[in-house]
Amino acid sequence: MSRILTGIQSTGVPHLGNVLGAIQPMVRLSNQPEHEAFAFIADLHSLTSIKGATERIQNVQSVSAAWLACGFDAEKNTLYCQSDVPEVTELAWYLSCFTPFPMLANAHSFKDKSERLNEVNAGLFTYPVLMAADIIGYDANIVPVGKDQLQHVEIARDLAGSFNHKYGNTFVIPEASVQTDVMILPGTDGRKMSKSYGNTINIFLPEKELKKVVMAIQTDSTSLEEPKNPDTCNVFQIFKLVAPESMSSEMRNKYLQGGYGYGHAKTELFEYIKHHFSKEREIYREFMEYPDQLENIMLKGAEKARDIITDVLKRVRHTLGFR
Amino acid sequence: MSRILTGIQSTGVPHLGNVLGAIQPMVRLSNQPEHEAFAFIADLHSLTSIKGATERIQNVQSVSAAWLACGFDAEKNTLYCQSDVPEVTELAWYLSCFTPFPMLANAHSFKDKSERLNEVNAGLFTYPVLMAADIIGYDANIVPVGKDQLQHVEIARDLAGSFNHKYGNTFVIPEASVQTDVMILPGTDGRKMSKSYGNTINIFLPEKELKKVVMAIQTDSTSLEEPKNPDTCNVFQIFKLVAPESMSSEMRNKYLQGGYGYGHAKTELFEYIKHHFSKEREIYREFMEYPDQLENIMLKGAEKARDIITDVLKRVRHTLGFR
Repeated sequence: MSRILTGIQSTGVPHLGNVLGAIQPMVRLSNQPEHEAFAFIADLHSLTSIKGATERIQNVQSVSAAWLACGFDAEKNTLYCQSDVPEVTELAWYLSCFTPFPMLANAHSFKDKSERLNEVNAGLFTYPVLMAADIIGYDANIVPVGKDQLQHVEIARDLAGSFNHKYGNTFVIPEASVQTDVMILPGTDGRKMSKSYGNTINIFLPEKELKKVVMAIQTDSTSLEEPKNPDTCNVFQIFKLVAPESMSSEMRNKYLQGGYGYGHAKTELFEYIKHHFSKEREIYREFMEYPDQLENIMLKGAEKARDIITDVLKRVRHTLGFR
Repeated sequence: MSRILTGIQSTGVPHLGNVLGAIQPMVRLSNQPEHEAFAFIADLHSLTSIKGATERIQNVQSVSAAWLACGFDAEKNTLYCQSDVPEVTELAWYLSCFTPFPMLANAHSFKDKSERLNEVNAGLFTYPVLMAADIIGYDANIVPVGKDQLQHVEIARDLAGSFNHKYGNTFVIPEASVQTDVMILPGTDGRKMSKSYGNTINIFLPEKELKKVVMAIQTDSTSLEEPKNPDTCNVFQIFKLVAPESMSSEMRNKYLQGGYGYGHAKTELFEYIKHHFSKEREIYREFMEYPDQLENIMLKGAEKARDIITDVLKRVRHTLGFR
């Protein structure tokens, strides 16, 4: 059995792009009997940018609720909040004493910021070490990553490998699994759906608000009667990626025939999202209404995670001569 | 009551210079009823340079035994090993997210090393943050430091102060107490006594070995009969700082009169050390023979320390929105 590990950004409610491109693929992977998944909400990392308590608490809550709502099985697998297992910071200290300074100074993530160093905090500089601890502290075998995150897994591999070389087998060496066919969902303005563009569709919104967001998808001014090009329309581009092929080719025909307005397409998209994700929306709503239930699940996950990292730390402390 | 905090380097058995210049002054301070002292053996810091487990274990053992042997009252005060309270690394992570990168890049301790960055590990770069956590994690009021360590307390003050400014009172702001009249003891070769010069006198050595070290103090070739200059003699310079004035002025006279050899002076110094530190030597020997006793005392200290930092972390976690 392979342990797959994934860190989840805790920067707010996951949007439709996150659900289709990240959560659902991971849920499918984690449900396979040959895999066990550890998914953690990276709220310690969030402190490098988010300083407000309320925002952090809300983010952690909505992100964990969304993962559970999308079918992440926290019994078979492990879902936890990074800060509920602060032992990871201890491992990060040990690793930092074996991390060459230039390895961090030359990391892409830092180089991107090196022209405005006054705004960079030390946490931003060292976070690849905390990330390495996040990975090797849980004996992870496989870390699915986008190409831009590959370097972080490489740093974790380097640190684990050189430690093992020096002291004998202590850490499991993780493998990156680079995801190349990640679905890129367009947002309401046609650019890639992203929180930073403010063009997201949050499928967990109450019905009225969800409808408002979908109805606001940008379209051109072609009149209802005229035939329309589905391939340049944001509504169709989203529908095509969300709905099954039979439904999207039917919508394509309506676009081409004319007499079918953008309002009709938007309504179809809205109805599809509402029904397709009805279970997810219901579970999410319940968790947000009864956060104690959510907290119990997360704390149970943290206990499972703590057992693993405590064992890893025991090996490291013994190796390094700490009690 | 003021809480005084001091970090103890864990780089080997304290030598006579450490005992007179650091341990004894701190013991005196810590015995005052208006003070409570927290002294910790900085073995997490030691990982930035010492990689071997055996060396670390021996260092921690001999340093803690020496402090207790020199009269540090671990009941009234608190003596603990840094790594026994790894919670401090969690606080260090939080603080690092509020530490501007340039604050660390411009720290003396790092600038000194910036020409050989390949040999610098990330721990060496960030250790002022861990040191800040060491200080403000224990609500320390006063940190006695040498001038070269003043910047570290200033960093701790800065971080605590700006956190309090942003979030309201969370941390106690520590004050540095700069020690200007630190005794500089010459070593066996006349240079400042220092482990790095290999010129130390370890007062905890077994009698025969101690005698050998003292008898090897460098002197010139003036014959036994001739008068000698005490002020240029390493033996007298050490004796003067160790023994009471009455004894050293008596020895001064013998030097000036002649017919008194360096061997005589060395024997007097050896006998003085042996008797003056007989209690310390005995207690040290016992602790080294029965390390379980020592460990019990240290673990009890760690429990006291953990209570404090757990409380500080509770405040910080609540402020930042961690569970």
